[in-house]
Amino acid sequence: MAEKALSGAGLRGQVAGETALCTVGKSGSGLTYRGYDIKELADKVSFEEVAYLLAHGELPTQSELSDYKTRLKSLRGLPQELKDVLERIPAEAHPMDVLRTGCSFLGNLETEESFDDADRHIERMLAVFPSIMLYWYRYSHDGVRIETETNDDSIGAHFLHLLHDKAPTELHSAVMNTSLILYAEHEFNASTFTARVCASTLSDIHSCVTGAIGSLRGPLHGGANEAAMDLIENMESADDAESTLVGMLERKDKIMGFGHAIYREFDPRNDIIKAWSKKLSEEFGDSRLYDVSVRCEEVMWREKKLFPNADFFHASAYHYMGIPTKLFTPIFVMSRVSGWTAHVKEQRANNRIIRPSADYTGPEPRPVPALSER
Amino acid sequence: MAEKALSGAGLRGQVAGETALCTVGKSGSGLTYRGYDIKELADKVSFEEVAYLLAHGELPTQSELSDYKTRLKSLRGLPQELKDVLERIPAEAHPMDVLRTGCSFLGNLETEESFDDADRHIERMLAVFPSIMLYWYRYSHDGVRIETETNDDSIGAHFLHLLHDKAPTELHSAVMNTSLILYAEHEFNASTFTARVCASTLSDIHSCVTGAIGSLRGPLHGGANEAAMDLIENMESADDAESTLVGMLERKDKIMGFGHAIYREFDPRNDIIKAWSKKLSEEFGDSRLYDVSVRCEEVMWREKKLFPNADFFHASAYHYMGIPTKLFTPIFVMSRVSGWTAHVKEQRANNRIIRPSADYTGPEPRPVPALSER
Repeated sequence: MAEKALSGAGLRGQVAGETALCTVGKSGSGLTYRGYDIKELADKVSFEEVAYLLAHGELPTQSELSDYKTRLKSLRGLPQELKDVLERIPAEAHPMDVLRTGCSFLGNLETEESFDDADRHIERMLAVFPSIMLYWYRYSHDGVRIETETNDDSIGAHFLHLLHDKAPTELHSAVMNTSLILYAEHEFNASTFTARVCASTLSDIHSCVTGAIGSLRGPLHGGANEAAMDLIENMESADDAESTLVGMLERKDKIMGFGHAIYREFDPRNDIIKAWSKKLSEEFGDSRLYDVSVRCEEVMWREKKLFPNADFFHASAYHYMGIPTKLFTPIFVMSRVSGWTAHVKEQRANNRIIRPSADYTGPEPRPVPALSER
Repeated sequence: MAEKALSGAGLRGQVAGETALCTVGKSGSGLTYRGYDIKELADKVSFEEVAYLLAHGELPTQSELSDYKTRLKSLRGLPQELKDVLERIPAEAHPMDVLRTGCSFLGNLETEESFDDADRHIERMLAVFPSIMLYWYRYSHDGVRIETETNDDSIGAHFLHLLHDKAPTELHSAVMNTSLILYAEHEFNASTFTARVCASTLSDIHSCVTGAIGSLRGPLHGGANEAAMDLIENMESADDAESTLVGMLERKDKIMGFGHAIYREFDPRNDIIKAWSKKLSEEFGDSRLYDVSVRCEEVMWREKKLFPNADFFHASAYHYMGIPTKLFTPIFVMSRVSGWTAHVKEQRANNRIIRPSADYTGPEPRPVPALSER
């Protein structure tokens, strides 16, 4: 991407603080959470262990994990006032606006009065975001008031259960688990940085997360998996994908789900979600979307030396699990809230208010003209 | 304030972009909006003219101003769904959480579908934020459902009318007008920068403003005028103020409302609001709060060479107009939304996603231990 000649533009490469949470593009496969490689985490642990790791610095012991999951399970219920609010949001609203509002409203009922309570509020958000999203979705789209308190063992399974009204298969739970791990944390991206700027004023945690959701909503940030779905869903075969993509490249159309601002050769998350997408396609008994995606990957590499990022194979994977496209970015929130809130804690622990400068490009000092002389 | 040895801490002095909106601490009295000195603006124009100036680049002509004010007046009503939401927020909620939620919820009903519509949404927010705040406040505190559509000529008068159930005096309208001008814009402060980070993802304007409200909520940012009120309200006389302050300084207590991150010798907004506070004290027939504030100013300068910032005399001024302390920071929002949204437009017009880097301070790469071995 060509650099614009804009002073300080995007703060690219400028250090805005310290973090012990994550490295991006540095060593091993290119993504670590607190020193653990993303591939090993995706292979060996649950999302709940990752969320605990991000919040507390170390992976939980067996008993810590058991307690943690028990607490998370107990926090899935929605206060009646919040249900009332969600029922007043129209079906055509942007799901990210729903989640942003749900989080903000929750802050009115369950305000973080002391930073000592941060962990309790973080666990609440992790547990209740799927409930918020799906209570609204099912009410506005299906006309039903769902019970959000289920006994599912994981956040991923809870989400699928509320969506489909039945406990998910082991395969689907496993894919959701991996997906949530892959999206959990990614250093000083725009939404995380939003959360840190807000935290730097010593504001409450609901303000930080509400702001972060708003930033993730932007099409330059979240939403690439939805755009990837829009791309592949009308491709009828691998050959159709080939001709469609080649045509788009000739017309210089923007193609979402490829390349990355920081990764240069590959996105370490791609192989992982791609393997799950393949498994899902076999279980689903229709490999069209997977085959189409693989061909897109081949064409983009051959023509542009661009690789699929984490979002691309997420599109087919989510689709195989029956997840509506408009809920893709909200799933990103349900995962990334673990990273955002860990950054909030980190910012608070060594804080200085984030207040950069600007280059002034406006008018020179001038006198105020009278209304009649303008 | 001593600098912490934290790399990139707070981005202080680092340029994060360009702006034509404002200079802080540069020329003249030290604060200009699009080249106009704050003192001259406060003296000669209305807040609506300032809001128009920030949004459109130039002060309005007579007919532009007339149209603009007519539009703003027509946008004061609340949709029933939003009233329903506000009625479900408890009286003890933080008023900034209420405003954050009101703005976010509005985004569900009146989503910014195209950036071409930004001005319409900005006008709506300017007009409706006082209605949101006071509908909730009056319902939760007084048990009444107020009519928010009034015929007041200005945003400041509309606010006071809804609060007190009667049209304000000319003096009170004039003070509110000046106060809103003083708080309208202040370059890349933390809340404005939050709005710009959000805007840089190309998110919608309700997300940007919702995030900014969350950042302004933090006690290191908004809220200094409320803290100033807490300080002065129990001081019984100027002499009492003197002894109280000297004692606080000896104990090294934090004293809010003095000094500034950027201004070094004075805050250009102080003289302006101080003069209004004096007038209000004369009208009110009790100068205690004003006298106390003046003595605080003297003591802080004599002992610490610290000057009052914009917030300090706002406390007494607002109090003389019968405004409850908890509504001080929300008034800041009703004003600053003009600056935030002008920055959003500016960011969009020359955008690059804001994504800084971090210094990594975490663990070296390490293998994932089995659950049984932690």
